[in-house]
Amino acid sequence: MIDLRSDTVTTPDEAMREAAFAADVGDDVYGEDPTVNELEARAADRVGTEAALYVPTGTMGNQIAARVHTDRGQEVLADRKSHVVKYELGGFAQHAGLQVRMLDADPRGVPTPAQIDASCVAEDLHRPGTGLLCLENTHNARGGLAVAPERIEVAADAAHDRDVPVHVDGARLFNAATALDVPVTDLTDPVDSVMFCLSKGLGAPVGSMLAGSEEFIERARRVRKLFGGGMRQAGIVAGPGLRALENVDDLAADHEHARLLADGLGELDGVEVQEPETNIVLVDVSGLGLDADGALERLRDGDVRASAFGETTLRFCTHRSVSRAEVERAVTRVSEAFA
Amino acid sequence: MIDLRSDTVTTPDEAMREAAFAADVGDDVYGEDPTVNELEARAADRVGTEAALYVPTGTMGNQIAARVHTDRGQEVLADRKSHVVKYELGGFAQHAGLQVRMLDADPRGVPTPAQIDASCVAEDLHRPGTGLLCLENTHNARGGLAVAPERIEVAADAAHDRDVPVHVDGARLFNAATALDVPVTDLTDPVDSVMFCLSKGLGAPVGSMLAGSEEFIERARRVRKLFGGGMRQAGIVAGPGLRALENVDDLAADHEHARLLADGLGELDGVEVQEPETNIVLVDVSGLGLDADGALERLRDGDVRASAFGETTLRFCTHRSVSRAEVERAVTRVSEAFA
Amino acid sequence: MIDLRSDTVTTPDEAMREAAFAADVGDDVYGEDPTVNELEARAADRVGTEAALYVPTGTMGNQIAARVHTDRGQEVLADRKSHVVKYELGGFAQHAGLQVRMLDADPRGVPTPAQIDASCVAEDLHRPGTGLLCLENTHNARGGLAVAPERIEVAADAAHDRDVPVHVDGARLFNAATALDVPVTDLTDPVDSVMFCLSKGLGAPVGSMLAGSEEFIERARRVRKLFGGGMRQAGIVAGPGLRALENVDDLAADHEHARLLADGLGELDGVEVQEPETNIVLVDVSGLGLDADGALERLRDGDVRASAFGETTLRFCTHRSVSRAEVERAVTRVSEAFA
Amino acid sequence: MIDLRSDTVTTPDEAMREAAFAADVGDDVYGEDPTVNELEARAADRVGTEAALYVPTGTMGNQIAARVHTDRGQEVLADRKSHVVKYELGGFAQHAGLQVRMLDADPRGVPTPAQIDASCVAEDLHRPGTGLLCLENTHNARGGLAVAPERIEVAADAAHDRDVPVHVDGARLFNAATALDVPVTDLTDPVDSVMFCLSKGLGAPVGSMLAGSEEFIERARRVRKLFGGGMRQAGIVAGPGLRALENVDDLAADHEHARLLADGLGELDGVEVQEPETNIVLVDVSGLGLDADGALERLRDGDVRASAFGETTLRFCTHRSVSRAEVERAVTRVSEAFA
Repeated sequence: MIDLRSDTVTTPDEAMREAAFAADVGDDVYGEDPTVNELEARAADRVGTEAALYVPTGTMGNQIAARVHTDRGQEVLADRKSHVVKYELGGFAQHAGLQVRMLDADPRGVPTPAQIDASCVAEDLHRPGTGLLCLENTHNARGGLAVAPERIEVAADAAHDRDVPVHVDGARLFNAATALDVPVTDLTDPVDSVMFCLSKGLGAPVGSMLAGSEEFIERARRVRKLFGGGMRQAGIVAGPGLRALENVDDLAADHEHARLLADGLGELDGVEVQEPETNIVLVDVSGLGLDADGALERLRDGDVRASAFGETTLRFCTHRSVSRAEVERAVTRVSEAFA
Repeated sequence: MIDLRSDTVTTPDEAMREAAFAADVGDDVYGEDPTVNELEARAADRVGTEAALYVPTGTMGNQIAARVHTDRGQEVLADRKSHVVKYELGGFAQHAGLQVRMLDADPRGVPTPAQIDASCVAEDLHRPGTGLLCLENTHNARGGLAVAPERIEVAADAAHDRDVPVHVDGARLFNAATALDVPVTDLTDPVDSVMFCLSKGLGAPVGSMLAGSEEFIERARRVRKLFGGGMRQAGIVAGPGLRALENVDDLAADHEHARLLADGLGELDGVEVQEPETNIVLVDVSGLGLDADGALERLRDGDVRASAFGETTLRFCTHRSVSRAEVERAVTRVSEAFA
Repeated sequence: MIDLRSDTVTTPDEAMREAAFAADVGDDVYGEDPTVNELEARAADRVGTEAALYVPTGTMGNQIAARVHTDRGQEVLADRKSHVVKYELGGFAQHAGLQVRMLDADPRGVPTPAQIDASCVAEDLHRPGTGLLCLENTHNARGGLAVAPERIEVAADAAHDRDVPVHVDGARLFNAATALDVPVTDLTDPVDSVMFCLSKGLGAPVGSMLAGSEEFIERARRVRKLFGGGMRQAGIVAGPGLRALENVDDLAADHEHARLLADGLGELDGVEVQEPETNIVLVDVSGLGLDADGALERLRDGDVRASAFGETTLRFCTHRSVSRAEVERAVTRVSEAFA
Repeated sequence: MIDLRSDTVTTPDEAMREAAFAADVGDDVYGEDPTVNELEARAADRVGTEAALYVPTGTMGNQIAARVHTDRGQEVLADRKSHVVKYELGGFAQHAGLQVRMLDADPRGVPTPAQIDASCVAEDLHRPGTGLLCLENTHNARGGLAVAPERIEVAADAAHDRDVPVHVDGARLFNAATALDVPVTDLTDPVDSVMFCLSKGLGAPVGSMLAGSEEFIERARRVRKLFGGGMRQAGIVAGPGLRALENVDDLAADHEHARLLADGLGELDGVEVQEPETNIVLVDVSGLGLDADGALERLRDGDVRASAFGETTLRFCTHRSVSRAEVERAVTRVSEAFA
């Protein structure tokens, strides 16, 4: 079975397992886990922020960020197709009483300055006031699109002009930096906080990082406790997380595999492929007279897995647990399955 | 000063004041205020529901409805320009933990069946599930547009096909029925609950009605208490509210006045007037080189008041406290102010 | 039927009805209702605060106060038997995410300084931090006990020493001042905000006042809107509310009637009467071999109504709609009913 | 440094590290991590429930349980000194809108049937209704007291008679079973759900289990996602968790060490020791003329750590990372420090 459902299925390699085995640990709720401390310092350094916080999942990182940046009853600006809107169970409303102003952002999922300007509302007797702009990089539901520094800057400037802070859901932040061939700090310097995942493409078994100013992270640490994210000897998973930071250079291969896959599938009749920028390939199967579920069933029979991303759209996601040879084999199998 | 800011400024007439004076009252929290009971029965009868509940404001009525119809963590579908989205302080998120899926609905503010279908999400591990469709009639921010029964039916059918209940924010419901020349029940029969205001065009000093099934209203009564809306000898204001129900026929005059105003203002240079359907006239003043605030200032100097409804848009609202002669005078004054 | 269930059943007198009839009104959401403005000014003046806000109910006043004084996730200190704990549907948790630290306060329902000191928690990684102390005066569930200025001062000092603000639920605040024979400002000066009802003993049909600093009231006004408490031509009920402020001197009669009732009932066999301080008389009927519901049924047959206030406890509440003669008649009827 | 602050400081042993290294993993959000699946099955089997869920922390487990068992706006009955009340940041209010009815439970922290009966309120127009009884076993803040099956049964029966479900915060559940010498199922059979920690005394680096019926766990799984607790290749920490289940027999030694410690400290002048039942020793130092912080400082100078548990109370907690010899050494050092 070639599993291209998601890069969340990556499994830790030998080095990561060794890092888990050998991790120097302590009680992280007391701030005494040296491995977690090292990971937090390294992560902050990497994305150019004062501080960082280890969290069990990207969802928790995003939700903590929204809560720390805002007052209850404010609004968050976010692309309608963003992960925080679609796949986090309405957490902004549930955890923080925030109303999401869903924007039909530009094709890369970034609200334009004009949209931001028009959507920011000043707090008054009837209106909540805008408390946060939330961006996503790479943008998952739009096909893993990488958002360039200039775009982030422009959006962040528009928000900051209104005194609205900016958070980036960078679950696949390093995929963006890799695809754009820019230092990751170019993507994080313009914003106030960023979450990125050590799992997914980087291959750690567990964990994400939330990064921002020292004051922000201090408050985030408390909200993490409220959410039940204050783990104890977390070095066991932070150790593999440290290793994951060394896997950034491997992402280029995932992107190459995605292009390979896209090229192969693009030749099939009845199939429309969105040109990939990173490790995600969106494929429309309506031309085959199939819906997503029907197509997935055929694939499964051919020992390939993808995921449904709309009525007639499949998502294939390349990752470090699938080799170039397997991707080539996947092309063949998909061709047969759809023939 | 001719006050066309809003029909919320209508003041009670002699008959209403007499109704306040003479109201038979009791403790409505015990269900013993005969005037409130009569009003609730009459209101339910009027809109064709099993029961109705007297609430201090339309906002409270809408917020109670959302909370009763849904489970925490669900989504509400609503037009991006609707009152519940723009002017209720993010209450759906704050009071009920609901995420609003903001739709760019059709020009009348009604989501199309296709939009509803595409926007309803089934509850799963990542997604909230859709719990409510909220419509608005007349649609305030879109210029007091009256939504016809067929459109409501089509939208409600699409929602009901997904087991999603439908609430109508009918703050100006009788304006819609009047403009469309249909029985108001044509507008309410397709939906599960409706809120309409006794204040505004109908002229009551205080109060709105929330109407729906008996079970719905029983649960709403409890949420009203939670929100601090359980008033005692409310007959004093329910009495005028009963009188307000008799003012429905007068709304036609307000609509005529709105057309008069629109015709008059439409002749001015640099001014773009949206053809009114009910008692609301939206006027774009960008052609005058003015923004809304600048235009309002000029009007105020000319003893006319309107309200800002966007960067360069004014809203004029006709109502029973402004006579035909005053509307005519307003046209003259606005012409002079904008000259 | 002599109705002693609650002073919430008081009905407005002729003067109040005339005040409703004649009220000068405007749109209070715009701050333009002269009667509401006068009432707010008079109320603030009366309790010695910078400002006051008219709210539809006492519950809304208390809930707004808690939300304005605190940050989400803090704790509120309150007597376990207080109204905010028992009868407001868990609103502090629901509206503001607050945890109530329920205290078994002294017999008058006032936490001792030692309790306050021991119960205040400083915000840390695990603990919410204390955001508010909420007192009640008179204390309803403890039998309408009047809390003297010294006690309030001592409690408020203990809270203020910890930077914790203090709110008084003074639904029957003027009953306390009357019973204690002190200026009402002696009861409000030590605290940060107070809510008192115009309905209940003062006889207004609708409405309560929330009073505090200008900044507090400005923020309260916005939360009132969120809760759906922003009424329009509220002068119609604020007018009677103004009149209600003139009824304060009549409360002494209610208290005398309560003593009359207590004396009469105290002579009955099997009945234990708590000496009343204000207008509330608690009566234990366990000696009759009856529970509260059984006792109420007997009373109803004798054309007297009271309310259940525990397994075997009845509450009788005197008020301006029940005369001295009726109270005397009530004693006779209760005697017969319990014979 | 001999660290007796908490059993949360236990570090994983070689076998656990090997289990982390060798764990068979998959994506647990897809339900495909075989190690997590095995752990959930084993945990459910161990406590005699249909199903179980792996969560990052005990706090998350308790908070999920409260949310799944209740409707918003209900009340939870809990001992005033319980962990959920004191140390979870008011989560019941924040995450689920629940009001905690804090009870001064019996000396073991179990509300008596009479308390439960008196504290359960039926949902009505003013009152929230009781939705959950939450017990704690062992009871941390009361000195690690073990609550016997009979007591749990009696409390659970009282709650069930009112249709109120019961959750046990069993962070140290196996300590209770060990101390009482009963099968752990005797402690869990009477209740509807239980959380127990794999970390703390059992020594796993990360993770707790929430156990209950299949339907309960299915709903809990979704709330875990909402809270950001849906980790991916969690087998890396679930593997050590499985090993932790084999450490149950070692808890007896911790308890013996606690008695050793208590005996030693009990001989010191000015020190009051609560007889330990499990691995927690509470020590009052007021007789030394010291407060808790002052006492801790002296201990730190003597290379022993404990934690403050009140103004003048210290908590010493024995655990698998501190040997018998170290406990003996601790006694000597404490004696010297307090001399």
